[in-house]
Amino acid sequence: MKQSQLQKIRYTYEPKLPPAIRGDIASISLSLGEPTQALSDQEALKKTFAHTYGKPIATMQASGNNPQASVQRTVGVILSGGQAPGGHNVISGIFDALKKANPQNKLLGFLGGPSGLVEDQKIEITAEYMNDFRNTGGFDIIGSGRTKIETPEQFAAARKTCQTNKIDALVVIGGDDSNTNAALLAEYFVAQGDPVQVIGVPKTIDGDLKNEYIEASFGFDTAVKTYSELIGNIQRDANSAKKYWHFIKLMGRSASHIALECALQTRPTACIISEEVAEKKQTLQQIVSSLAEIVAKRAEGGENFGVVLIPEGLIEFIPEMGRLISEVNDLLAIHSTEFSGISGPDEQARWLSGKLSTESAPVFTSLPRDIQHQLLMDRDPHGNVQVSRIETEKLLIQMVSEELNERARTGSYQGIFNALNHFFGYEGRCAFPSNFDADYTYSLGYSAFVLIANGLTGYLSSVRKIAQPASEWVAGGIPLTMMMNMEQRHGEKKPVIKKALVELEGAPFTYFARHRDEWATRTSFVYPGAIQYYGPDEICNQPTITLRLEQGLEA
Amino acid sequence: MKQSQLQKIRYTYEPKLPPAIRGDIASISLSLGEPTQALSDQEALKKTFAHTYGKPIATMQASGNNPQASVQRTVGVILSGGQAPGGHNVISGIFDALKKANPQNKLLGFLGGPSGLVEDQKIEITAEYMNDFRNTGGFDIIGSGRTKIETPEQFAAARKTCQTNKIDALVVIGGDDSNTNAALLAEYFVAQGDPVQVIGVPKTIDGDLKNEYIEASFGFDTAVKTYSELIGNIQRDANSAKKYWHFIKLMGRSASHIALECALQTRPTACIISEEVAEKKQTLQQIVSSLAEIVAKRAEGGENFGVVLIPEGLIEFIPEMGRLISEVNDLLAIHSTEFSGISGPDEQARWLSGKLSTESAPVFTSLPRDIQHQLLMDRDPHGNVQVSRIETEKLLIQMVSEELNERARTGSYQGIFNALNHFFGYEGRCAFPSNFDADYTYSLGYSAFVLIANGLTGYLSSVRKIAQPASEWVAGGIPLTMMMNMEQRHGEKKPVIKKALVELEGAPFTYFARHRDEWATRTSFVYPGAIQYYGPDEICNQPTITLRLEQGLEA
Repeated sequence: MKQSQLQKIRYTYEPKLPPAIRGDIASISLSLGEPTQALSDQEALKKTFAHTYGKPIATMQASGNNPQASVQRTVGVILSGGQAPGGHNVISGIFDALKKANPQNKLLGFLGGPSGLVEDQKIEITAEYMNDFRNTGGFDIIGSGRTKIETPEQFAAARKTCQTNKIDALVVIGGDDSNTNAALLAEYFVAQGDPVQVIGVPKTIDGDLKNEYIEASFGFDTAVKTYSELIGNIQRDANSAKKYWHFIKLMGRSASHIALECALQTRPTACIISEEVAEKKQTLQQIVSSLAEIVAKRAEGGENFGVVLIPEGLIEFIPEMGRLISEVNDLLAIHSTEFSGISGPDEQARWLSGKLSTESAPVFTSLPRDIQHQLLMDRDPHGNVQVSRIETEKLLIQMVSEELNERARTGSYQGIFNALNHFFGYEGRCAFPSNFDADYTYSLGYSAFVLIANGLTGYLSSVRKIAQPASEWVAGGIPLTMMMNMEQRHGEKKPVIKKALVELEGAPFTYFARHRDEWATRTSFVYPGAIQYYGPDEICNQPTITLRLEQGLEA
Repeated sequence: MKQSQLQKIRYTYEPKLPPAIRGDIASISLSLGEPTQALSDQEALKKTFAHTYGKPIATMQASGNNPQASVQRTVGVILSGGQAPGGHNVISGIFDALKKANPQNKLLGFLGGPSGLVEDQKIEITAEYMNDFRNTGGFDIIGSGRTKIETPEQFAAARKTCQTNKIDALVVIGGDDSNTNAALLAEYFVAQGDPVQVIGVPKTIDGDLKNEYIEASFGFDTAVKTYSELIGNIQRDANSAKKYWHFIKLMGRSASHIALECALQTRPTACIISEEVAEKKQTLQQIVSSLAEIVAKRAEGGENFGVVLIPEGLIEFIPEMGRLISEVNDLLAIHSTEFSGISGPDEQARWLSGKLSTESAPVFTSLPRDIQHQLLMDRDPHGNVQVSRIETEKLLIQMVSEELNERARTGSYQGIFNALNHFFGYEGRCAFPSNFDADYTYSLGYSAFVLIANGLTGYLSSVRKIAQPASEWVAGGIPLTMMMNMEQRHGEKKPVIKKALVELEGAPFTYFARHRDEWATRTSFVYPGAIQYYGPDEICNQPTITLRLEQGLEA
């Protein structure tokens, strides 16, 4: 298969490691802190994780002596969930650490996500195979999948696979759900008396898996820089042509971390943050009005252009829309036969309006026709509205346009509103990892093996102080139970890692909130350009602005 | 205004010039060839361009002596039409050459495109102002516009502006239409006895302004590399998740150069070339069937994923669709009052079906409902269908999906067709110019001034051998009339620069045609990654594959 020039040269990039883990694996010891507590629901979680609850935080140190380091091991690795730049480097980090500890060690890659473990589908990752994936994007080295290991049969099958392959440890690379699964698996193996250790690695471009010890999930850096490149390019176009408004929806599931970081990078005319919408209980009409107000203000100065960023999860965070969506889901589940007998979207919409509550019916009828249809037509296999498929960017354009027409009729607006829509998501999930993500993921993978070599299980690999250069980075491990609470899932209380949403008191949001009025009225676009892998540090070795602000540095 | 780190460092980049023009401006002389001929309609063009027709090709040489070089001059520059990366560097090239020839020389930038010349809206470009735009994307230095200078009043106003500002020469940076306008302006000034010279610079990301002497229009390189970055990222995602088909529409107006170059860069599962569709007189159904066939074949091997590239202009090149669109335009012009009285898109569609010819009516009714509505609703100010707004990528997804459902019913297809759509255009028009485009545009601008200093008018600035390193480049000028023919425009024969479409016998298309079956059946994705500005030549100083193949080099 043909390799691009960038691919060839990236193979030779040597990721940077935290200083404490640069030496022999046997020389790396762990300093352990006090026992830890879960975020809440401690008693319930103590029960679920009877053997693995409340372990101490581990920090790696260079001047130790670990006689177990070179014991021969077989490690299995799993990629779980959506792609994020750097997944291949987590695996190369594990691989290099494991071979350095003992060249006889083996790394097995389970294929297609957790189902590969259940079904014993795997390959051995050799040095030659590994080299074709170093510092590249994608999860194609072993593939990924969204299977959850939940049933007793699945747990038993996973156990059998580990026995068959004499697996000593598993590394699960995934987001909040996958790492919750990793914690359950760790507990399960201990409970069974199996010596299989389980270590998680924090992955997700969405940035919603983080806390004091996990400063960022990997892939976020590269994804936001890729989107910021595109937003900056579009902004420069808008500022040159001066005739279009661009409404850009950004991936990121519920949380608005991606939209917020892109706003900090590019300084758009407006950026909606879902968490703020929910906090202030804003209605769709309020959001539309505030955007229309910005458009009208700029039009007064002759500036009929701008760029608006919209987080993917917005729709669910607007209280009235969240309620509408859940009513639609319920109604279509209850009346599925009746509904499927109605032909034509307009007729379906009329039928639905008659069934909705008096609160939700007017919300539904106020939506543009296309969006009404999207609510009715694009349904997932469980019959639910596919929120991510709703074209919020088009919805807002249509509604802002209607409000501006209304203002024009009353004479309070005299501009031209010509708007284009975009959605960026898949463009950034498999980019070549930035140097930051390449270094960070390699370090996470490397540390994951060091945790294994030190006998730990139920931990998340952790690299801290990552807003600083790699020479300052601190490697360690965080007990998974520490990040958990109990949440309602399908009618049951379940242990889950708590999703980190944008904090309205946090430094990144407050910085944004302080500047957004200025960015709205006075074009302040910043053009970050494409991710650079070579050249001076300031263009190729910078963390996100979110990270810098969170760690008390300048934006 | 905040500048990104990349922006700051790009300001210091020094673009490369062809060797012949690196010395003193006074030392650059022109070698002139034989008189030239227009592409066709020579007699008609001789009449239109009585004073400027048929001039010789000019090639720049280093060892000359031009006593006129240092004469004090005021030059005006205009950016015309859509943005293309490198526009700012054309201006910095003119600026640097002009100041080198005589520090007293002045460069005036007319604002907002050709209307700036008609309305005498301008700024003087100073060294300080210029430095803020070097090697950056966008046209925001002076803005751009699409006004054509056509009426006698406009010509007279342009003349007056030149007199008022004591302009010695104008540089028009634009595409085929704008350079046609430049040729008419050059002729006009000579006819009036005004000493104002006019030089054009070949701009357009679409790549459709080229011939033997203009090897590429500027901006194409950066735009296709930006799109190829995104396509490659999406391909890697497709190949990791193995569950989506991505249908990606690419900007490029009528011509498919962008789609073709992106296909050569990324090796997608399929890429449609409009010029081939027209040549083979393919129907929409045939295109759909051939895509469905590829999807079905891959599904047999379990590969329910792929990437399809679609050129923006496709719809007009499908003969039956071209006919339909022109009928719709005619009908809605004739019956506009009747049509505007019909409420609701479904009713409008029914009305239209009744009016269309027996050939076009079934084509219209075979289209998905959304697309029927787009044909009826999105109309430009002249009442015409806005072809570029028709979501061809969604149209093809819907129709391929329907055909696959049909195949599934007859048992000849058992895959899963889950498709997502994208449209890339604005993402690439204002990217930081690649080193290639930064060098090429700077050289074009620099050469434009050298042509002026040598007394020429009615020329297009030309830099050749650009598939080679800049040390081999050859600078010169091409008479604009050489690229012209007469074409029907609004019921009249008009002189125009002939648009360069993809040649089906050309090396780029034949290379693609030779490999596409393999790319369709066996995943052959290439991942080019983001444009790099620093590092070894192979990642940051490469021309497009189109250029390499056209100049007889390896892909």
